[in-house]
Formats: sequence, C-alpha cells, structure tokens
Amino acid sequence: MKVTKKRTRIAPIFKSVTKQGIGASPGTPIYIGDREPVDATYSLIQYNDTTISVATPESIEEIILMQDPNMINWININGFANEVDYKRLCGFLKLDSLTAEDIINTKHRPKMEDFGHYLMVIAKMITAKENEGQAFEQISFILTENAVVTFQERPGDCFNPIRQRLKANGKLRKLGTDYLLYALLDVIVDNYFSVLEVLSVRLEAVEDASVSAKESKSFMRGMQNIKTDLNHLRRIMWPVRDTVSELIHAETPLVGETIAPYLRDLHENVIQVIEVLDNYRETAAGIQDVFLSSVSTRMNEIMKVLTIISTIFIPLSFVTGIYGMNFINMPELSSIWGYPAAMGSMALIAGGLIFFFKHKNWL
Amino acid sequence: MKVTKKRTRIAPIFKSVTKQGIGASPGTPIYIGDREPVDATYSLIQYNDTTISVATPESIEEIILMQDPNMINWININGFANEVDYKRLCGFLKLDSLTAEDIINTKHRPKMEDFGHYLMVIAKMITAKENEGQAFEQISFILTENAVVTFQERPGDCFNPIRQRLKANGKLRKLGTDYLLYALLDVIVDNYFSVLEVLSVRLEAVEDASVSAKESKSFMRGMQNIKTDLNHLRRIMWPVRDTVSELIHAETPLVGETIAPYLRDLHENVIQVIEVLDNYRETAAGIQDVFLSSVSTRMNEIMKVLTIISTIFIPLSFVTGIYGMNFINMPELSSIWGYPAAMGSMALIAGGLIFFFKHKNWL
Amino acid sequence: MKVTKKRTRIAPIFKSVTKQGIGASPGTPIYIGDREPVDATYSLIQYNDTTISVATPESIEEIILMQDPNMINWININGFANEVDYKRLCGFLKLDSLTAEDIINTKHRPKMEDFGHYLMVIAKMITAKENEGQAFEQISFILTENAVVTFQERPGDCFNPIRQRLKANGKLRKLGTDYLLYALLDVIVDNYFSVLEVLSVRLEAVEDASVSAKESKSFMRGMQNIKTDLNHLRRIMWPVRDTVSELIHAETPLVGETIAPYLRDLHENVIQVIEVLDNYRETAAGIQDVFLSSVSTRMNEIMKVLTIISTIFIPLSFVTGIYGMNFINMPELSSIWGYPAAMGSMALIAGGLIFFFKHKNWL
Amino acid sequence: MKVTKKRTRIAPIFKSVTKQGIGASPGTPIYIGDREPVDATYSLIQYNDTTISVATPESIEEIILMQDPNMINWININGFANEVDYKRLCGFLKLDSLTAEDIINTKHRPKMEDFGHYLMVIAKMITAKENEGQAFEQISFILTENAVVTFQERPGDCFNPIRQRLKANGKLRKLGTDYLLYALLDVIVDNYFSVLEVLSVRLEAVEDASVSAKESKSFMRGMQNIKTDLNHLRRIMWPVRDTVSELIHAETPLVGETIAPYLRDLHENVIQVIEVLDNYRETAAGIQDVFLSSVSTRMNEIMKVLTIISTIFIPLSFVTGIYGMNFINMPELSSIWGYPAAMGSMALIAGGLIFFFKHKNWL
Amino acid sequence: MKVTKKRTRIAPIFKSVTKQGIGASPGTPIYIGDREPVDATYSLIQYNDTTISVATPESIEEIILMQDPNMINWININGFANEVDYKRLCGFLKLDSLTAEDIINTKHRPKMEDFGHYLMVIAKMITAKENEGQAFEQISFILTENAVVTFQERPGDCFNPIRQRLKANGKLRKLGTDYLLYALLDVIVDNYFSVLEVLSVRLEAVEDASVSAKESKSFMRGMQNIKTDLNHLRRIMWPVRDTVSELIHAETPLVGETIAPYLRDLHENVIQVIEVLDNYRETAAGIQDVFLSSVSTRMNEIMKVLTIISTIFIPLSFVTGIYGMNFINMPELSSIWGYPAAMGSMALIAGGLIFFFKHKNWL
Repeated sequence: MKVTKKRTRIAPIFKSVTKQGIGASPGTPIYIGDREPVDATYSLIQYNDTTISVATPESIEEIILMQDPNMINWININGFANEVDYKRLCGFLKLDSLTAEDIINTKHRPKMEDFGHYLMVIAKMITAKENEGQAFEQISFILTENAVVTFQERPGDCFNPIRQRLKANGKLRKLGTDYLLYALLDVIVDNYFSVLEVLSVRLEAVEDASVSAKESKSFMRGMQNIKTDLNHLRRIMWPVRDTVSELIHAETPLVGETIAPYLRDLHENVIQVIEVLDNYRETAAGIQDVFLSSVSTRMNEIMKVLTIISTIFIPLSFVTGIYGMNFINMPELSSIWGYPAAMGSMALIAGGLIFFFKHKNWL
Repeated sequence: MKVTKKRTRIAPIFKSVTKQGIGASPGTPIYIGDREPVDATYSLIQYNDTTISVATPESIEEIILMQDPNMINWININGFANEVDYKRLCGFLKLDSLTAEDIINTKHRPKMEDFGHYLMVIAKMITAKENEGQAFEQISFILTENAVVTFQERPGDCFNPIRQRLKANGKLRKLGTDYLLYALLDVIVDNYFSVLEVLSVRLEAVEDASVSAKESKSFMRGMQNIKTDLNHLRRIMWPVRDTVSELIHAETPLVGETIAPYLRDLHENVIQVIEVLDNYRETAAGIQDVFLSSVSTRMNEIMKVLTIISTIFIPLSFVTGIYGMNFINMPELSSIWGYPAAMGSMALIAGGLIFFFKHKNWL
Repeated sequence: MKVTKKRTRIAPIFKSVTKQGIGASPGTPIYIGDREPVDATYSLIQYNDTTISVATPESIEEIILMQDPNMINWININGFANEVDYKRLCGFLKLDSLTAEDIINTKHRPKMEDFGHYLMVIAKMITAKENEGQAFEQISFILTENAVVTFQERPGDCFNPIRQRLKANGKLRKLGTDYLLYALLDVIVDNYFSVLEVLSVRLEAVEDASVSAKESKSFMRGMQNIKTDLNHLRRIMWPVRDTVSELIHAETPLVGETIAPYLRDLHENVIQVIEVLDNYRETAAGIQDVFLSSVSTRMNEIMKVLTIISTIFIPLSFVTGIYGMNFINMPELSSIWGYPAAMGSMALIAGGLIFFFKHKNWL
Repeated sequence: MKVTKKRTRIAPIFKSVTKQGIGASPGTPIYIGDREPVDATYSLIQYNDTTISVATPESIEEIILMQDPNMINWININGFANEVDYKRLCGFLKLDSLTAEDIINTKHRPKMEDFGHYLMVIAKMITAKENEGQAFEQISFILTENAVVTFQERPGDCFNPIRQRLKANGKLRKLGTDYLLYALLDVIVDNYFSVLEVLSVRLEAVEDASVSAKESKSFMRGMQNIKTDLNHLRRIMWPVRDTVSELIHAETPLVGETIAPYLRDLHENVIQVIEVLDNYRETAAGIQDVFLSSVSTRMNEIMKVLTIISTIFIPLSFVTGIYGMNFINMPELSSIWGYPAAMGSMALIAGGLIFFFKHKNWL
Repeated sequence: MKVTKKRTRIAPIFKSVTKQGIGASPGTPIYIGDREPVDATYSLIQYNDTTISVATPESIEEIILMQDPNMINWININGFANEVDYKRLCGFLKLDSLTAEDIINTKHRPKMEDFGHYLMVIAKMITAKENEGQAFEQISFILTENAVVTFQERPGDCFNPIRQRLKANGKLRKLGTDYLLYALLDVIVDNYFSVLEVLSVRLEAVEDASVSAKESKSFMRGMQNIKTDLNHLRRIMWPVRDTVSELIHAETPLVGETIAPYLRDLHENVIQVIEVLDNYRETAAGIQDVFLSSVSTRMNEIMKVLTIISTIFIPLSFVTGIYGMNFINMPELSSIWGYPAAMGSMALIAGGLIFFFKHKNWL
C-alpha cells in the first residue's frame, strides 16, 4: 500500500504574520497572501441614466484624471503591484491608512466599516473546483458618493452579468452607487450557491464511493476534506452575514433608504447559504455514520463466516485425530464398517453444527 | 449482496441558483422549484357576514373584475404558469417586485414582511408519505384590507375545513381578512401534527425492525432518512415560529387587536411541533444507541461461542496427535487400556474446560 | 432468545391532532388526552378567616348557587364529561373560549395567561411508578378575585395536605386566593421531588444491574427508558419554570405583593428540580459509560484467554504432527528416548510460551 | 472476580423532600440535611477600631444580652439543635420566616437575598478528602448594620485566619460589617482553590494509574468519580458566582461603596475557580481518551501476535498432516531424504510467512 | 515496552493558593508564579516629538527622580524581587493595593481596570517552543497621563520593534501614552500569530506521524498535548478579547478618540487568532478521526487476512486427517491414485475457497 502524503489543509485563509514582520507600524500597507502578486490592471466604467463609457486605463493617474463627479464611476483594480500607484490612489480617495492596509491584506475577515466620507466592505469571492477544493479571493469595496472601487487579488471575476446589465440600461443605471455596491455583493452571494452545488456533487460522489468502499481511509480523507471546506465556508459566511446586516443598519447618507429591501433580500440569501451549509454538515455526518456502520457490519460478517467454517472443521479434525491414533486395541479400526461409520458420524456432526448455527440465526 | 443505490437526500428544500442565472436583476420573477410548473387554476370566495359566493374564474382578468371591496375576497391560485397574468395580478395588488420574486421562488424560507398596504407571509405545507418521506409545498399569502391571496405550487391543499367553515357561517364569516389568514395558517400548522404522527409511525417501524435487525445497513439508512426528515422539518419550523411571532408583534392596521390571542395560540402550537421534533430526535438517537449496542452484543455472543468451541477441541486434538505419533517406544499404545484411557482423559479435559468456562461465567 | 417487544415510549405527552380534527374552529372545547374521560365529580371548599365549609356538590348548577363572594371559594373539578355543564361553568366564570379549549386539551404545555378578570395557569401533576415510568396529569387553575378553580383529569390528587392546612386554620386561611394558588402549585412542585426520588432509585437499580450485567440489551433499554423519562420531565420543568417566573412578574391585582417572596421560593424549587434532572442525566451518562467499558473489557478478557489457549496448543499439535508422519527415515521414531524427548520438548515449548505471555503481561 | 458494590454517588447535594413532608406550610423551619443535627454551640466576637472581645456564650439569650450596637458583632452558630432558641434568635434579628427556613435547609443553592434591614447570603464550604471525594457544608450569613451572623452545620470551619486578623487589628477592624462578610466569603473561595489542588492530585493519580492500567473498569470508575465531583463543584460555583455578582450590584446601604473593588476581586476569583474546573474537565476527558485508545491498542496488539502465531503453524501442521496420511503410494515417504526435505520445506514456509508479515509491517 | 511517564499538563496557568496562604488580607502583594523570582532590572525610555533618551536606572528611586512630566515615560520592569522598592513605586504611581496585588500575581487572567487616574491592563506574552509546548509570561501595564509602566516576570520580551520605531521617530513619537500602550499590545498580539505558526507546524508533524503510525499511544499523547495547548490559548484569548473590547469602550480621558480605530484593528486581530484556534481544533479533531479510522482499518485488514489463511488450511488439514486414520478398510489408501487424488482434491478445495473469498470480495 503506497501512502500518498496528502495533508489536511490547515487554515489557509488567515493572516500569516511571518510575511508582515511582527511589530510593523499599523497602517503599513504590506501585501499578505498566498498568491504571487500580479501586475495591476484597471478598468473604469462611468455611467448615468443616459450614457455609459467603458475604459481600461493604464495607470492610476489616468483613472484619477478621468473621474467625472456627475457620473457614477466604477473603478475595478486587479492585483496590487505598484506601491507608489497604490498610495496615490489611496490619497486621491482620502482613504485612512488602516483601510489601505486592510485592502492589501488579502487574509482579512469580511467586514464593513464606515469612515464618514466612504464605506469599506471586505468580501470573499469563492471558486469551487470539483477536485481541488475551494479557492478564496478577497474583494474589497470602497463606496463613496459617486464612485465604487473594487480591489481584486487578480484578474477574473464573476461581475460580467453586472457589466451586461449596466450596458443594457436597466434599474442599475438609474440608481446610485449604493445600488451598484448591492448588485456586486448580490452577484458574489449568488455565486456562493454554485459553490454549494459543487459541494453537493462532491457529497454525492463521496456517498457513492461509500457504497463500494473498500478503502476506508480514502473515504475518511475525502470526507474530512469536505468537512474542512464546509467549515471554511461557514467561517466566511458568518462575517459576511454580519457585514450585510451592518450595511442595512448603517447610519450613513452613502446607503440610501431605497436599497434597504434589496439588502434585506441579500441578507436572507446569505442566511440561506448558511442553512444549506448546516444541512450539508449534517448530511456529511450522516453519510459517515452509515459508512462506518457498514464497514463494521461487513467486517463482522466476514469474521463470522470465517469463524463458523473453522468451528465446523475443528471437531471433525478431532474425530480424524482419534482414528489416527496408533493404539493396538481400537476395535473400530479393524471393523469393515469402521471407516464409513466414522465418515458418517463426521457428516452428522457437521450437519448438526450447521443446523445449530442456522437455528441460532448465525448463518 | 446487491447494493441498491439509495442516496441520502441532500438539501432538497433550498434555492437552486442554476435555474435562476447568477446576477439576474433582483425582482425578476423566475420560477424556482423542483416541480414542473402547472397551468394556473383559480378560485375566488367572496363573503361577508350575510352572504357568500364561490367562483372558479378562468383568468386573472376575471378575478380582478369580480373584486368587491365590501366583501372579503379569498383568491386562491394554484400554479404559476402564465407570466403575463402573474404580472397583471401583481400590478393589481400593487405588489413590490421583490414580493413578486419571492412568491414565485418556491424554495424560500418562511417569513413575514410588512409592505404597508399589504403583508406577505410565506409558509410551507408539508405532506408526509409513510414510505417516501416528505413533500414540501410553498404557500404564500398576501393580506390586504379586504383580500387574502394564497399562492400554491399546484392544486390540492389542506384548506377544505376552512371552506366548509366559511359556508357554515361561523365566527370566520364575522371577522376580517386577518382572521382568515390566521385560520389558514392554523390549518397548515395543525397539518404538521399529522406529519408528526406519520413520523412517529416510521420511528416505531424502525424500532420494530431494529429488534430482528440482521441488516444493520438498512437500519442505519432508514434511521438516517428519519433524521434527515426531522432536520428538514426543524429547519422549516424555526422560521415558521419567527414568522408567527412577527405577525403577533406586527405594528400594522392590517392585523387587528382581536386576533392577537389566536395568533398566540398558533405560536404555542408551533412551539409544540418543535418540541415534539426535538423529542423525536432524542428518541431516534436512543433507538439507534440500543440497536448498535444490541448488534455489537449479538456479534460478541456469536464470536464467544465459536471461540469456546474451538478452544475445547484444540487440546483434545493435541491428545489425539500424541497418540498418532509413530514412536516405537510408546507403552500406552500397546496397552489394552490405552485407547479407553486416552478417550477418558480427553473427556476429562473437555469436561474440565467446560466447567472452567461455566465457572468463569463465560458460557 | 425470546424477543419481548417493548417499545421506547414516543412522545406520550403532546397534543394528538387526530382526535381533534384538523381545521376545527379555535376555541372549540374538545377533550384531548390518552385517558377515557370520566364522569366529572366536584368539591367545593369555602373559607375565610373564621369559618370553613366543605361540600361535594352534584352539579355545576349547585356550585354556582353556593358561591359566596365574601368567602374564598376553591372549586375542584375531576374529569370533563358533560359538555353542557362545562360550558355553563365557563359562562359563569366568564372564561375566554381559548381558555375553555386549553383546559380541556390535556396535552397542553404548562403556561400562565392573564385575561384581566382572571388568570389561567396550566401545570402538570406527575406520578412516578417504580416499574412503569411516569404518569402525567394536567391540572389547570383559574384564579379570580374570590375563587380558585382547579380542573383535574380524574379523581385523586396531591392536595390533601392543603385541605388539612385549611381545616387547621393557619396562614392559608388568612390570605387570599393568590396564596391558595401558590400553596397548590407548591404542593405540585414538592411532589416533583418525590418523582426525583423514584428516579434516583431506578438509577441505582440500573447501576446495580450493570455490575452483573450479562444482558447488555436489557441494560441499554432500561437506561434508555430512564433517559426518556428524564427528557420528558425536563420538557415539563422548563415551561413550569417560565410559568412561575411569569406569575412573579405578572402585573395584575389578582396576585398581590405579599406572596412575591413565596413565588420566588417556588421558583427556586423548580430550578432545583431542573438541576437535579441535569445531574441525573450526567449520572446516567456516566453509568452507561462505565457499563459499556466494562462489557467491552470483559469480552476482550474472554477472547484473550481463549486465544492464548489456542496459541499454546497449536505449536504442540504441530510437533505431534511431525512425529505422526510416515517417513521411513525418521531416526527419532526408532530411538527409545524419542517419545519422552518429544513429550519433554512439547512441555518446554508450552512452558516457554506461557513464560513469554506472562512476561509480556498478557496473562 | 469479586464485585465491590461502589455506587456512583447520585446528587448528594440537594433537597430531600421526604424528610420535610410534602405540602408543609412554607416558612416552617425544618432541618434538612444528611448529617445528624448536633447541639448548637455559639461564639461571639465583638470589635471596633480600638477594642475586641471574644466570648463563647452558652445560649441565644446570652448572645442577645451581650449585643452592643456600638461595636461590630460577629455571631457564629454551629449546628441547629434547639428549635425554641432558633426561633428566639430569628425573632431578635427580625428574620423573615422564609429566611429562617432557608438557613435550616442545608441543601439550598447558594444565593443572596436583600430583605431591606438585612441581607441573607447562602454559601457552601467544601472540604476535599483525597480518597473520599468532597464534603459540602452549607454556611448562611445574615448581614445587618452592626452584626454578621454565620450559621454552620457543625463545628469546624476555615475562618481561623479571619479570627487572627481580627485580633491583629488590621484593616478588618477599621471597616464595617460588609467588609467582614467579604472577608469571610473570601476565605471560603480561597478554600476552593485547595479543593482544586486535591482534585489535580487525584487527576494525576488517575493518569498514573492509566499507564499501567490492566483494570479498565476501576479506571473508568475512578474517572467517573472525578467527573461527578467536578460536576458537583461546577453546580455550586455557578450560583456562587451569581451570588457575588448580585452582592456587587445590590442597591442596599448595608453594602458600602468602599468594598466594591474587593467584591470584584472575589468575583474574579470565583471565575478563576470555574475556569480551572472547565480545564480539569477537559483534562479528564483527554486522559480518558488516551486511556481508552491505549487499552484498545494493547488488546489489538495481543490479538495480532496470537493470530500470527496460529497462522504460521496452521500451514505447517497441514504439511505434517500430508505425510501422516497412510496412502501406499507416497514415494516421498520411502525416500531417505523425504523427512529432511519435509522439515526443510516447512522451515521455508514458516520463514516465508514471517518474511511476508514483516514485509507487510504486521510484525 | 518502556513506559515513559509523561503527564498531561494540568492547568499550569492559574493561581496556586498554597503559596499565598488562605485568608491573607486582600491587597497583600505576594508573588505568585511558577518561576523563581529574579532580581528586578529596569529600563526607562523618555521621549516626545523631538527628543528621546534611553536609560537603565539601577533602582526605583532613580526612576522616580528621572520622571519628566513633559515627556512620555515608558518604565519597563523585569522581575519583582525587592518588596520595599515595589511598594515605593506603587506609592509613587498611587496604585490601589488591589492593583499592586494583581500585578505581582502572575497567574491572573487578562483584564483591564479603570482606576480614574490610571488604567491597569494585564496581558500574557506567549512563547511557543516546537517541542516543549508553550511558556506564558504575564505582562501588566499601568497607563497614566504621561507614563506607561510595564511589569514583566523576567528579562526578555518582544518589544524590540517598538524600541526601534521609537528611535526612528515615526507616528509613535507624535502620539500619547495611549498609543504607546496600543503599540505594545499590538506587538503582543502579533506575537500570537507566530505561536499559531508553531502550532500549525506541530499539527502537520502529528499528521505526518499519523500516516506511518504504528504507535497509536504516542500519537494520542501528542494529539492530546496539542489539544491542551489549544485550550490554554483559547482560555487566554477570550479574556484578551474582552480586555481590548473594554479598552475601546473605556470612558476615560486616558484613552483618546484618535486611537479608537487602532484598538478596533487590534480587536479584529484577536478575533482572528481565536478563529484560527477554532480552526486548529477542528483540524486536530479531523486528523484524529482519520488516524483512528486508519488504525482500525489496518487492524481489521490484518485480522481478515490471517483468518482467511487459517480458514483455507483448516479444511485441508481435515482431509489429511481423514487419510491419516488407521481403518483397515479404506480402499482409497491402497489405490495407486489415492495420494494424487487426495492432493488434487485438496488443491480443488483450496482453489474453491479462494475463488469464493474473491467472489465475496473478501480478499
């Protein structure tokens, strides 16, 4: 049996202090994360009720120049390469140094903070791969009066439906930055449901495997991985729920009254995700119980049959042993019916034992 | 052993995002559910203290035309086929777009929402089949000043007692739409008790099966299904409890002071359902404990008896082995009493061992 | 092995909807319970500071006629046979229809409700039988300014100490109906302690049984019954605690300031019952742990000894097998010392193995 | 195997109703407890800033006569023998009848109650004996403006340090009765820490026993006793914590502002006791896990080795069986090399099996 | 098997009353701790916006003389040797006697207390050693308007980054004592992350060990140690979290508005530590589950194979037994084909059994 050294993944979603340096001054923006930081790319969508323009600026400077206070500006930034540019942007948006640090620390818990002239929201985009578990990508939002800035760890996101709805001129174009923020969060949460679907497929696969399961260990490891992923998701979902809840109750002019029902709807969706997760945890526990019980039953069954076979033959062997003894005075041996009688008595013994076992319901 | 692939059912009661499309604009009414949507059928009961009329209109238009603001209108809609009609109805009732979406999403959690000129309540009708588990059907209520609209997924409900009490001219005819809403919810909750009865029958069946249980696996799977159903019910009951509780404390003229005691009574009933569910969970856990313990005891018993049989015969076989040796100088062999002496000593050994085992209380 | 089909008792303490009929109008007084309703019998005790009269009226009419507003009237009713009489009484006491329904539904949870001119309290009288578990009897109280009405399911209660103290002219005679209610509740709660004593006897019996326990299954079932009873009690005690707590904080002139310390004392007693129950649960779990561990140890011990016996004899049998072979060229066989040498070497092997097992601490 | 009938101790710390009589009038002082009530003995310490006098009065009358309102009077009473005296004292102190009952019910939960002109505090003194578990003694305090009365179940307490500090004229002499109460409670809580030390010794003893443990059952029972004791302690500590917390927040002139920080310190100490108890529970659970795992490993190890021995010899015995057959046509038998060849092949088989087992890492 | 007596560590982080003496007057500063108290050493850093001076005074007197109310004074004290000096310092800082006692009791729980003219904060510095578990060192802070005093148990801390940042003249030099306190706490919390890293390494080591694990017991013990350490950390972290939370909400002029965001950031970090700890607990439980399951599977596998080998040979031995019998009338024996036929039939039996086992999927 070859042992493949697959480790249970340990806490891959949290702050790793060794990269930051203990005792660094707070507010120091240092990139924290598992991925190699990529060169930042930018996109800028400016729209109002009537017009919309999509641009892919080359630099922060360009973005700043292109700002139009009469339109809603959605600035999207992928990656955090250039420190100078990053500080320039933070300065332009008048971000607090702690905000600047939090955005770049991609191991942060989801949260919402109100800084008066802007709101910061940290969320997590989750991608589930059927075989390799889950990838978490932090996405931070800055909401100001006329802009939403989104910071992603790297290119590739789930916002294309929003981009299309913006171009299609719907409700999204008529409402403010708060509704854009809501729409983006909504897409992220909707995405969680597809993560759940992948998990349900994995759960079904593990369950199917459990039926034939000879490989108790691989089942346990697979089950363990699912449980770990469920725990990581739960750990993300609870602060997401709190974040949305705080958004609902935020006393800031940046979040208008009109989007309250949408945020409540979002809140319900997050709760639903949490409930499905709890459901999956119970289901996983149930599958494991059935599996363990079936493994143990199977083993018992095998041992029972094997022991019964032994138990039948041991008395028979004893009989052959008797007539294999070399005593001179064994009248049975010299009788012409001795051999068939011995064989017959052995058949009788075997039959009796089998009958006894059947009667006892052991066979 | 044939393996029938019966999967543990995984979360069949929640939103399935794949059908909706990620990032769809909120408020888009898209049918979400496991059932094929059926053609909508309608019924309209109009009553007041003195008169009552029952109609089965063919279309939404007809319903709208038949509205009488001086009577209480109970509009019941089964199925959600025609989108145009549905939007027409929502327009007539002045429903919020989020309400329209929630009604048609049949995977929604039970909840109550107050929109000023109407209340929306989402509940679940549950049908328990003794062999096939439980079927959940979402039922949404719109409560306005002079109408109650009920949206069901398909024809067939548990409201016939209400229809009869309406015809029988009792208290129901004298009170307003809020009391009608209460009466409908009360029937739904009363129905939960019969679901509980079916569950108790299933629990008893599983317990009876556990007594004879040779099939550990099938027991575990049956038990697992009951546990899953109990969990699904609990997951439904908690939000139902909150919904009723919110109705009690709703500060809206739509729910009058007079029905407060009835709603409190309803609340108590829901709590009782939850308590019975908890009780069943404990009972199920208890049955499983006893079963597992009895399986293990039985197995141990078998192994013990078999091992004891072997243990008695092995020394005896050793004795026969001795006298089966071919040494020339074995005086016992040539003695005329050798054979009976050997047999006697073997009988002695066997008896001694049996006595020893009995003494040790092992037999 | 004869299988006696003793079912774990499933939820015998809750509402059974099948008897009531789903969708019955609320406030319809329908008897719900497991017992055959008995013909109602009545007793009436009227007392004040100076005089006391005890009567056993034949009918409700008689009771109503005998009411004396200047005395404290304790009306006790056993059984709910006559519907007309029952409605007459409710009318006389001006009971709400929901109250009338709750009283007659003997599966109701303990609760307290304030209806302005009267208070309703529902409690449970528990009788513990050492062999048959527990019997629950619902007892409902109506507290008005000058009367306490007690509804019992059937004759036979634990109120005799109160009757004696009333006759003995103590504090009870000097205080109002609220103190009478307190005194009755206090007796009921005091009674719980004797239920606890019976449970502790049962726990000790189960523990004693566990020492000799060959019958793992019967132990598990007995333990399971105790656990079920503990759970039922807990399920009763929590709402009883809430009921008393609500009585303490009830803002009604019916419950005077003077009895607040007595109610607090009652509250403490209920909490003590709950604590003892929790203690018993832990004790039960502990006994079960010790039992299971001792069963498994015992089994292991037996299997070990048996296997050791086999293991010693198998090599010896091998030796006899060698010298039972029929090769012509086996010099040992023809040696005069062959036989004793073989026997000696077998003794050596056996001794060596025994020494080895002892050394390894396996024997 | 001799079975010593050591019962798990069941709830020895609670009210036993059988001694009290169900339905006794509340406020009736009846001694409740496990100990034989002893004749009461008294001590009286009177002190102020400048003088101190210690007396051991013979009777309550004497104590009452000796009261000096200008000094702080600490009256200590051991045992509750004389009912007349007890009532006389309660009358002198103007104690509520419920207080009088609570003091004498030595199974009461720790609590604090404010009666306006006096405070009652019930606490528990705990003595831990290394072999016999724990003894609980109830101690009740009455705090008035110029007196602290302590009621103990019997002579012997942990207050000697206080008596010495009183004589030594320190802070204790300068402050009021509230500080004396605090000081007495502080000693009691300090004493809990030595109970914890005894428990830690017992835990270590059980752990040491677990290493050599052949006696699974005695280990389990010892562990169970420790767990029971931990649970009893926890059950005492939680109300003690609440009692101290209520003392801190008591709005009574009897407890001055100046001792608030001392009470907070006391509160922290109680919390620390609770935390250590939780820690011990976890440690106990951990020791048990390791023990059970080691028992099972040991058993498995033994069974494995024994089975391997059998498995090696069974094929060998088969070979000897072959050459023990009496067929006439067995050329090997008549060959001169037959015997050594058979022995050699058996050695080969044995070696091969051993190699195989080693290769599989089973040996 | 040599048994190394490694005890599970029991509660090494709490108050040990035996050293203090039960009933000692509160506020008596007595050193409580596991370490030998060392001679105190002092350091004093005085700074403001423009200048900074670092001194290592020889005595408390010197420190007091060097105080400069116009600068921020950071007094660091390692060890608590000289009682006179300690009292002198407490007097100079006007510390409450309870504060003086708490500082010197190095087993205290983390807490924060506001005494008006100063704040006391107690925290824990943790050092993790990969092989020897964790060392806890208590560190107490006194925050006054112009001084921060830090009390450590012994020389050696994690504050060097702060000392460097002070010299480097950054934000730290511009803000007040509250920011210095925050910075020191921040370093301590940052340090917890490196403790977590060590724990993750230990978890991985245990997991790696579990793969090859023959030594079930040593695995269990290692796992138990990790769990104990996780529990100790959690027990420290919760009060640390509360302490920071209280600092945030402290209504004292000593903690300014400006550092609120920094404290919130600190709070988030502590929560993150707690979450990682919870994650580790789950991971540890998961690893243990997989290990136990794999041990049991492995054992079952071995027993199965061994039993199968026995089961194949026992019927074969029976056949050889038959033809080893000495009956005169056994025609097979004298047939020339008897021997090969017997061998062939045995081969057939063996093959049949193997086929049967393979068919049953047991091999």
